[in-house]
Amino acid sequence: MIVVMKVGSPEQEIQRIEAELQEWGLTPEKIIGKHKVVMGLVGETASLDPMQLKEISPWIENVLRVEKPYKKTSLEYRNGEHSNVTVSTPSGDVTFGQKHPVVIISGPCSVENEEMIVETAKAVKAAGASFLRGGAYKPRTSPYSFQGHGESALELLAAARDASGLGIITEVMDTADVDKVSEVADIVQVGARNMQNFPLLKKIGAQDKPVFLKRGMSATIDDWLMAAEYILAAGNSNVILCERGIRTFDRKYVRNTIDLAVIPVLRSLTHLPIAIDPSHGTGVASYVLPMAKAAIAAGTDSLMIEVHPNPAKALSDGPQSLTFDAFNHLMGELSVVGNAVGRWWKPRVTI
Amino acid sequence: MIVVMKVGSPEQEIQRIEAELQEWGLTPEKIIGKHKVVMGLVGETASLDPMQLKEISPWIENVLRVEKPYKKTSLEYRNGEHSNVTVSTPSGDVTFGQKHPVVIISGPCSVENEEMIVETAKAVKAAGASFLRGGAYKPRTSPYSFQGHGESALELLAAARDASGLGIITEVMDTADVDKVSEVADIVQVGARNMQNFPLLKKIGAQDKPVFLKRGMSATIDDWLMAAEYILAAGNSNVILCERGIRTFDRKYVRNTIDLAVIPVLRSLTHLPIAIDPSHGTGVASYVLPMAKAAIAAGTDSLMIEVHPNPAKALSDGPQSLTFDAFNHLMGELSVVGNAVGRWWKPRVTI
Amino acid sequence: MIVVMKVGSPEQEIQRIEAELQEWGLTPEKIIGKHKVVMGLVGETASLDPMQLKEISPWIENVLRVEKPYKKTSLEYRNGEHSNVTVSTPSGDVTFGQKHPVVIISGPCSVENEEMIVETAKAVKAAGASFLRGGAYKPRTSPYSFQGHGESALELLAAARDASGLGIITEVMDTADVDKVSEVADIVQVGARNMQNFPLLKKIGAQDKPVFLKRGMSATIDDWLMAAEYILAAGNSNVILCERGIRTFDRKYVRNTIDLAVIPVLRSLTHLPIAIDPSHGTGVASYVLPMAKAAIAAGTDSLMIEVHPNPAKALSDGPQSLTFDAFNHLMGELSVVGNAVGRWWKPRVTI
Amino acid sequence: MIVVMKVGSPEQEIQRIEAELQEWGLTPEKIIGKHKVVMGLVGETASLDPMQLKEISPWIENVLRVEKPYKKTSLEYRNGEHSNVTVSTPSGDVTFGQKHPVVIISGPCSVENEEMIVETAKAVKAAGASFLRGGAYKPRTSPYSFQGHGESALELLAAARDASGLGIITEVMDTADVDKVSEVADIVQVGARNMQNFPLLKKIGAQDKPVFLKRGMSATIDDWLMAAEYILAAGNSNVILCERGIRTFDRKYVRNTIDLAVIPVLRSLTHLPIAIDPSHGTGVASYVLPMAKAAIAAGTDSLMIEVHPNPAKALSDGPQSLTFDAFNHLMGELSVVGNAVGRWWKPRVTI
Repeated sequence: MIVVMKVGSPEQEIQRIEAELQEWGLTPEKIIGKHKVVMGLVGETASLDPMQLKEISPWIENVLRVEKPYKKTSLEYRNGEHSNVTVSTPSGDVTFGQKHPVVIISGPCSVENEEMIVETAKAVKAAGASFLRGGAYKPRTSPYSFQGHGESALELLAAARDASGLGIITEVMDTADVDKVSEVADIVQVGARNMQNFPLLKKIGAQDKPVFLKRGMSATIDDWLMAAEYILAAGNSNVILCERGIRTFDRKYVRNTIDLAVIPVLRSLTHLPIAIDPSHGTGVASYVLPMAKAAIAAGTDSLMIEVHPNPAKALSDGPQSLTFDAFNHLMGELSVVGNAVGRWWKPRVTI
Repeated sequence: MIVVMKVGSPEQEIQRIEAELQEWGLTPEKIIGKHKVVMGLVGETASLDPMQLKEISPWIENVLRVEKPYKKTSLEYRNGEHSNVTVSTPSGDVTFGQKHPVVIISGPCSVENEEMIVETAKAVKAAGASFLRGGAYKPRTSPYSFQGHGESALELLAAARDASGLGIITEVMDTADVDKVSEVADIVQVGARNMQNFPLLKKIGAQDKPVFLKRGMSATIDDWLMAAEYILAAGNSNVILCERGIRTFDRKYVRNTIDLAVIPVLRSLTHLPIAIDPSHGTGVASYVLPMAKAAIAAGTDSLMIEVHPNPAKALSDGPQSLTFDAFNHLMGELSVVGNAVGRWWKPRVTI
Repeated sequence: MIVVMKVGSPEQEIQRIEAELQEWGLTPEKIIGKHKVVMGLVGETASLDPMQLKEISPWIENVLRVEKPYKKTSLEYRNGEHSNVTVSTPSGDVTFGQKHPVVIISGPCSVENEEMIVETAKAVKAAGASFLRGGAYKPRTSPYSFQGHGESALELLAAARDASGLGIITEVMDTADVDKVSEVADIVQVGARNMQNFPLLKKIGAQDKPVFLKRGMSATIDDWLMAAEYILAAGNSNVILCERGIRTFDRKYVRNTIDLAVIPVLRSLTHLPIAIDPSHGTGVASYVLPMAKAAIAAGTDSLMIEVHPNPAKALSDGPQSLTFDAFNHLMGELSVVGNAVGRWWKPRVTI
Repeated sequence: MIVVMKVGSPEQEIQRIEAELQEWGLTPEKIIGKHKVVMGLVGETASLDPMQLKEISPWIENVLRVEKPYKKTSLEYRNGEHSNVTVSTPSGDVTFGQKHPVVIISGPCSVENEEMIVETAKAVKAAGASFLRGGAYKPRTSPYSFQGHGESALELLAAARDASGLGIITEVMDTADVDKVSEVADIVQVGARNMQNFPLLKKIGAQDKPVFLKRGMSATIDDWLMAAEYILAAGNSNVILCERGIRTFDRKYVRNTIDLAVIPVLRSLTHLPIAIDPSHGTGVASYVLPMAKAAIAAGTDSLMIEVHPNPAKALSDGPQSLTFDAFNHLMGELSVVGNAVGRWWKPRVTI
C-alpha cells in the first residue's frame, strides 16, 4: 500500500499520520521527494481498504494498493510453477494441468432417473469423457422449477460411476449437504451463484475432495481468486477454476458472455488449473462446439459440456445440452484442435 | 407463452407440435392468421424456458413469454394493492409501506463490541432511526478480513435493543444459523451475495420473522422478484426488497451503481415494500446524503444507512459509514425532503 | 505517475530506467525505501499510459497513475469553485449553476412540423420551462426510421423561439452541420452516441454557443470528463454535463439505468454544471416524474424532459414522452421538492 | 409485431385499436383464441417501437417484436448463403469469407513516420499478413494525446503499400475526410467509437471501398447489425464486421472483454464476414496470441493484430502491440491451428 500526500502537506500532519498508521499495526516507510511525500506501508495490508486509509487525513491525496489481495492462490506462492490437480476415478487417476490432455467433463444438468444417468455416463465415456457431471441439488431461478432429486440422486450418480468407470462431479449448495456430497463425489462443485457463499467455501475447504469453483456471473478475477483463497486457506489446495460466462448488456442471443481471455489472465496470476464451460457460457447448444474449440486453442485444461439423451425433454437447461450424436461429433472436432496444440489424449482421428 | 410458426409450416408438423405440447401438459390454442400460425399455450408455463420449447421443431420461428415468472410476489396477486410489512419492536409496531413514513434503519456494518453497538444504537435512536442494523456474520471478500463475531454478536444486538428500544435487523448467511438469528432478530436480512442461495431462501421463508431481501449485485429485476417468490412460496409474505447498488462498468469513484429507478419499476410489478441502501449503493460516506434524499423523493419506503462511532477504525466498510454527527445532519436534511413529500414521521425541523 | 520497482531490482537497471524515462521527457524522482525503490515521475504524464511505461523493464512491478487525466475540466482548475453557464434567451439570461434554480429544458424528441413545435414550445413555456429541446438531426438506430427534418427543422425551431420566448437547444451530429446549428441554437447538444466523436467535439469547442454534453451509454466518468476537456481545450468553457442513463445488464423494464450518483461524484471532480435527462434515462413516461424528483433532491442544476402533444403518434421516442397535461402535473410535483431544497424559481404551489 | 390483448378486452376497444393501427399504415390480422385476442401486424414494422405501440391502449398487455430490425444485413436476405468480400491489393485479390483462409491484417496503431510504417509493412508482409493497418486519424480519449498525422499520414500509407505490396486499411472519423481516406485506402475502417455515427455511416455507405465496421464498446449484436444496415442501405454491401472487445465490469487485467461467441451468433444472423481484433480486444500484448488462436478455432474469417517496431515507444496503444519477433512467432503458432481447421494459406510449418 502506498500513501501519496498532497503537495504542501504540513510536517506535523505527516507525523500524526505516521503515528496513526503504526497504531494500525503498519510500518510506514516515509520517502521524501522534491515535491511530494510518499509513504510505503509495510505489514499486513492485504485486508485493508485503500478508501478507508484515505479517511485518516484530508491531506492524503491517494492510497494505492500494490500487493495482491490473495496469497496461497497466487502464482508467486508456488514460485511461478503451475499446479496440477489429480483426481482418482474408477478408471485411474486423471490430472488437470497445463502439461496434461484436456480433461472432458460431461453429462446432464440434473440427474433425472437411473436409466438416463447411466445411459448418459456410458455414452460420454465411450466418446472420451473422464468425468460425469449431474446435478442432485439444482439452483433454479424459480421455486416452481424442478429442484433436483437431492440425496437420492447421489446414489444414482454412484451407480452411474460403477456402470461407466467415470469420476463423478456434482454441486453442493448448502453447508448441511457438504458431507453427503463429499462422500459420493470425486470432485465437489461450487456453482456460480454460490461463489461468494463464504460459509460453504469454508466447509468445502475443510473436506478432502478436489473442488470445482465456478466463477460468479458478475465476479471480477480478483473476487474469484479470493473465493478460491477461502478454500485454500481452509486447507484444500485442489481447486479448479471454471469460467461459465459473465453477465453483460447483451443477452438476446446468448445467456452469458463467455470470457475466454481469463485463460491467459489466470495463467499469469494463479497456479490453479482452469476449466471452461461453454454450455452455460453460451446457453445455446449450437454455440458449444465453436466455443469449446476456441477454449482448447486458448489453452484450457478442461471442458465441462452438457449432454442429455433428449434435450427437448430435459428437466433443466435443455437448450444448451447436446444429444449423444452431437457430443460424439463435438469430440471428433475437438480432437483436431486438441491434437494440433498437443493437448489431446489420443491421436487425431479423421473426420 | 406464444409459439410463432414460420411462414409455410406444414400442417402435419403443426399437428405434431400440438401433440408434443399436450404431452408437456400444455393446452395449445391454435390461432390461424392469413400468413402465419400462432399458438397460445395455456397451462403451467411459468417454469418453462422459451428456448427449450423452440427445440421441439425447426419450423418454430420464435417462442415468446407473455406471463410473468413470479406469482405471489406480483402486484396482480393482490389485485393491484400494495402491501405493508409491520414489525413489532420494543418501541411499538413499525410499518414499511407506501402510506407510512420512511423507516430509517441504521447502525454499523458489523457488531464489534458491546460498547460500540449500544452507543451506536442510542445515537441513531435519538436521531430518529427505528431499527438497528449490525452484522454478526459478515460476508467478506477476503478470508483474512474480520468475519464477524458470530453467535456472541447476536447477544450484543439483543443488549443494544434492550438499551435503545430499537428493532434489530441482522444478516444470516448459512442455513445452519437461521434459527439462532431468527430468534434474536426482528427482521432477518438476506445479503446481496446470497440473493440466489436457494436453500437459505427456503429456510428463511419457513420462519416467521420479516425478511429484508437485498438485490444481488448483478440480479435483474426478475431474478430479484423470483428470489422473493422463494420466500413467499415457503410461507412468509413479509418481505422488504432492498436495492443496494448494482455492478456496472465504472467503479472508480463508487463501489456500485445505485439504481433508483427500481422504485417506480417495482411499484408497477410487485406489492412488496421497497428500501434503499445508499451506503452500500455508493460505498462513499459523502455520497450517502444526496442519494438518501433522492431515494425519498423517488418514493422509497425505507432507508438503510451505515453509521459508526469512528469510521476510520471500523473493522469493515468504514469508508461508507457516517459519524454520529454526520448522521444527525443527514436526518435533518432528510426531514426537509421527507416532509415535502409527506413521508416523514415528524414535522419539518429548521436546519 | 509512480513507478514501483520489484524487491531486489539491480541498481544498474534502475539507472537504465531513469535514463530511459528522461528520454521520454520526464524527470524521475527516485525515492529509496527500506525494501523497495519507488520513482515519482515529474512532467507531462497526463497522456502517458501506465501499462506502456511498464513495458520498459521486467523489473518494474507496477506503474500507478496519481494525476487526473483532465485539467481545465477539473475542480482544481478553478480552485474548488464551481462554475455557472449563463445562456441568453429571448426572455433574458438563464443560468445553470449550483446557486440557481433548476433549469427546465423540455420539448419533443424531434421537430415534426411547425404546428407541433410551436404548440409544444408555448405549452412548456407556460408550465415553467426555460428551453425548448427538439431534434432537427436525429441519431436513429435504424436507417429506416425517421431521421429528422434536418436544416428545415432549424427554421422551425427559430420560429418556435420567436413564438414562445424560450431558448433553443438542439443536437448536431456532423462536423459539416456545426455552423448551421450553432447559428440557430442557444445551446448546442452533443448526443450520447457522439460523446467520443472527437472531430465533432473539437469543432463544437471552437464555436461560441454553450454546449450540452450527454454522457455516452458506456462512458466512465473519466471518459466523459475527457470529452468535456476536448471542448474546453478548444476554447469553449461553457459546457453542461448531462447524464442520460447508462447501459447495464437489465434492460427489460427500462431502456437505460439512470446513474444519479454522478451528481455528487461530478461535484467533487469538476466545476461544470450538471443536468439529468430522466426521459432517456428510463425510456418510460411513467418513470420520468419520480426520477426527476430524485434528481432535484440529489442536487441537479437542470432537467431535460421530453414532451409531445401526442406521444402515441410521435415520430421518435414516443414511449418516454409526456403529454402537456402530464408535464403540467410533473412541474407541480417538482416545485414541491424544488422548493424544499431551495432550487425552484417560484414559491411552492399547492397541489 | 404481435399485439397481445388483456383477457376481457372490450370488443369496441379492439376495433378502435385495429382502426388506429390501420392509420399507422399497418394491417392488423386479428386472431381470436379461447381466452385472448392476439393481433399480428403486417406491414413496415421494422422501425416501430413495441413500447410505443403499447401506448395506444391500456388494454394492450404486451407488444412483441417477431421480425428482425435489419434486412439487407440478414442471412435471410441472401437465402442463407454467406457472402464474401473480395478486396484488390497490389499483390492480387484477397477474399474475406468462410471458405477462404483467415486474412491477416497487421500494423501499428498509428502511422508515426515513413520509416516505421514502411519497415513495419515489410515485416508483416514477410510474416504472412495481407493488409497493413495504420491510423492517420486517431480517436484518442485525451485531447492532449497524439491525434495522428492526418492527411500526410495517408501519403505514408500509400508509400508503404507501394513498398510492400500490402493492401491498406485505415480509419476515418469525420464525414469531411471520407473522400480523402477512400481514395487511398483499400478498406475503410469505422472505429468502435463511431459505430453509431450515422452521418459517417451514410457517407461511407455511398463510397465504393469495402468497409471494416468495428463493434461499439457497448453495442448489442442488433445495434451492430443495424449500423451495418446503414452502410448496406446506402449502397455498399462489402462490409466486414470486426469484434474488438466490449466493456464489462472487470477491466483490471484487460481493457475490454473479447466476445468470441459473436462468431457463431453472427453466422446464424448475417451473411457478412467476420473479423476479430485480439489486440484491442484484450489490450495486453501477451494475451494476443491465445485469443488469436481461439478466434481461428471458433471460425473467424480475419484477424487484426497490432505490431510496432518498438512498442515501448509507440505514440499510441503500445501495451497491446507485438514486436516483429513476437508477430513472427504468433504467425507460426497460428499456422498450427489454422491448418488444423483448414483455414490457413500455406501448409503447417514446424515450430
